[in-house]
Amino acid sequence: NCSSEANDLALRLARHFTGHRDVITLDNAYHGHVSSLIDISPYKHHQLPDAERNPYVHVAPSPDVYRGKYRADHPDAATAYADEVRDIIDRAHERGGKIAAFIAESLQSCGGQVVPPVGYFQQVAAYVAQHVRRAGGVVIADEVQVGFGRVGSHFWAFQLQGDDFVPDIVTMGKPMGNGHPLSCVVATPEVAEAFASCGMEYFNTVRPGPPPDTGLGLTPPWSPRNPPVWREPGVLRHRLSRPGRHGERGPAGERRTCGATPDAPAGGAETEAPADRRRQGRGLFVGVELVKDRVTLAPATAEAQEVINRLKEEKILLSADGPHRNVLKFKPPLCFTAQDADLAVEKIDLVLT
Amino acid sequence: NCSSEANDLALRLARHFTGHRDVITLDNAYHGHVSSLIDISPYKHHQLPDAERNPYVHVAPSPDVYRGKYRADHPDAATAYADEVRDIIDRAHERGGKIAAFIAESLQSCGGQVVPPVGYFQQVAAYVAQHVRRAGGVVIADEVQVGFGRVGSHFWAFQLQGDDFVPDIVTMGKPMGNGHPLSCVVATPEVAEAFASCGMEYFNTVRPGPPPDTGLGLTPPWSPRNPPVWREPGVLRHRLSRPGRHGERGPAGERRTCGATPDAPAGGAETEAPADRRRQGRGLFVGVELVKDRVTLAPATAEAQEVINRLKEEKILLSADGPHRNVLKFKPPLCFTAQDADLAVEKIDLVLT
Repeated sequence: NCSSEANDLALRLARHFTGHRDVITLDNAYHGHVSSLIDISPYKHHQLPDAERNPYVHVAPSPDVYRGKYRADHPDAATAYADEVRDIIDRAHERGGKIAAFIAESLQSCGGQVVPPVGYFQQVAAYVAQHVRRAGGVVIADEVQVGFGRVGSHFWAFQLQGDDFVPDIVTMGKPMGNGHPLSCVVATPEVAEAFASCGMEYFNTVRPGPPPDTGLGLTPPWSPRNPPVWREPGVLRHRLSRPGRHGERGPAGERRTCGATPDAPAGGAETEAPADRRRQGRGLFVGVELVKDRVTLAPATAEAQEVINRLKEEKILLSADGPHRNVLKFKPPLCFTAQDADLAVEKIDLVLT
Repeated sequence: NCSSEANDLALRLARHFTGHRDVITLDNAYHGHVSSLIDISPYKHHQLPDAERNPYVHVAPSPDVYRGKYRADHPDAATAYADEVRDIIDRAHERGGKIAAFIAESLQSCGGQVVPPVGYFQQVAAYVAQHVRRAGGVVIADEVQVGFGRVGSHFWAFQLQGDDFVPDIVTMGKPMGNGHPLSCVVATPEVAEAFASCGMEYFNTVRPGPPPDTGLGLTPPWSPRNPPVWREPGVLRHRLSRPGRHGERGPAGERRTCGATPDAPAGGAETEAPADRRRQGRGLFVGVELVKDRVTLAPATAEAQEVINRLKEEKILLSADGPHRNVLKFKPPLCFTAQDADLAVEKIDLVLT
């Protein structure tokens, strides 16, 4: 898929700009399916023997406060996870490695619908400013699965971390072409100019057929520093709302519909069920993790598959993801309505109880 | 473009099958624009400093009998070029390198529309059988630009070398989707099974929109050992014919139209002109190389660009390619007719004289 081309190009941009080769990625990350991206995708390459792993790739812990190294009971998980990145940078430098880039999805998707603790990327960015940028490295935000308003409150998921965090390179794809293979790489002028002056043209072919059904892909590119204004203000509100309470008026007088906010867990799935559940998400990006035991967090992988199979009988298609394939993955398209959400919650409730 | 994904997957297949890493590629080759393919594309990476080149990639001379290391006056250029590949295999083995694959376009496209001397691939395949295959390597034929009947006499360009040459992996793309991004990798059962059993799923997304305009891409895959029967027998004949003599009846009673055969150079371009010309090609795959001097072969790069610019005024779009960008590249679509060929020859004649 063409989002792989976007992430591959982002790595090339970073390496041309810095002249360095090493890349820091997150555990369980998935960034694409071509060779260079499998190298930085533990989600894929954890099945490979160590000998086949790329020695220039460093894996930092996934900032997952439910199942990760530092959890919700940690006094400052954001700092603890960010410090792990700092330590990797330091160790790489000691061994003579030079960091070209830190790359992460703003919210991990295939890695288990993980929402990093507030402040994580800000602190990583601070370390990057001190360490990676001291050596010329860049920060790449992969917004292929989570960008374009999916998180509801912001157009880009990286904005959830605060206005003071701005990546050097942002990659985008999937929703961009409305089903057509369309992707994009946005970079700071410095990074783009370094690539332009390297002498190697960037060549790609554009579909010569009729314009995509959507008319998308024909408008000028956006910049992460200047996010576009969504033409219909209702769209973002459509994604930012409280499930189970749709129809009420929000603070701005808007009618709330569907989607997840941090303070409003999906009520319909709160009833008791054999498997415990962790729910994380923002807007139309939600993960529900099934475990056999709240203490050991033993993944309820088979149960998750059973839920999926039974939902399929109810004509609802869902998938499980994450390293243990026990996280029910909710990533509906923009046309998803409050009625669709009601139906999904009702059927999941039925299956779980 | 998705043909890059096909060639990247072919390399992954070869490396999984063999457990080896080294790849032999041809000088001036172009196999795609993602990192792993730029590594094996001297057409792209010759601009890079040596330090950035992949140490696992070995470059063999392009089997170009016009401008290459061994030329038309060599008693056996095919053997001489094939011996170069054998020597590379030997040297790699001596240094402990293990060859995963030999990859080549069956006819070099961006490398300058090069038609290898008859018997080259057969001998390379023989060396590969003795050397690479002894170590478990595979032969990859890149048919992205030259497959699907473009050469006229055969469906796949590698068949030009004889029925006894069969690659282990064949990649295809461009014409396959009729403008839609569609590509394909075909491999022997052994290679495919080795990948299937490696534990890493191959994931790619398929365009969820309406079926491509063409209806293509929905038929079962072909095998290089069992090339498909083109449904309209006239199509291949359309590509195999003698320019300037279209309309006459061929040996099988078919009406010849346009395209190049080895024994029938394009008559219309034979008139005297400031720049000398080398013409090579098969079917609808033709290169016309412009040089300033028949002995030194000094490339007429600026003149080629001038020809292109003047043809553009005549509403004919052409490009120049090859390492010196002095080879006029003719690779018209299947709908190209004898009348189109007449017009192109007439205008080129006008511009050159």
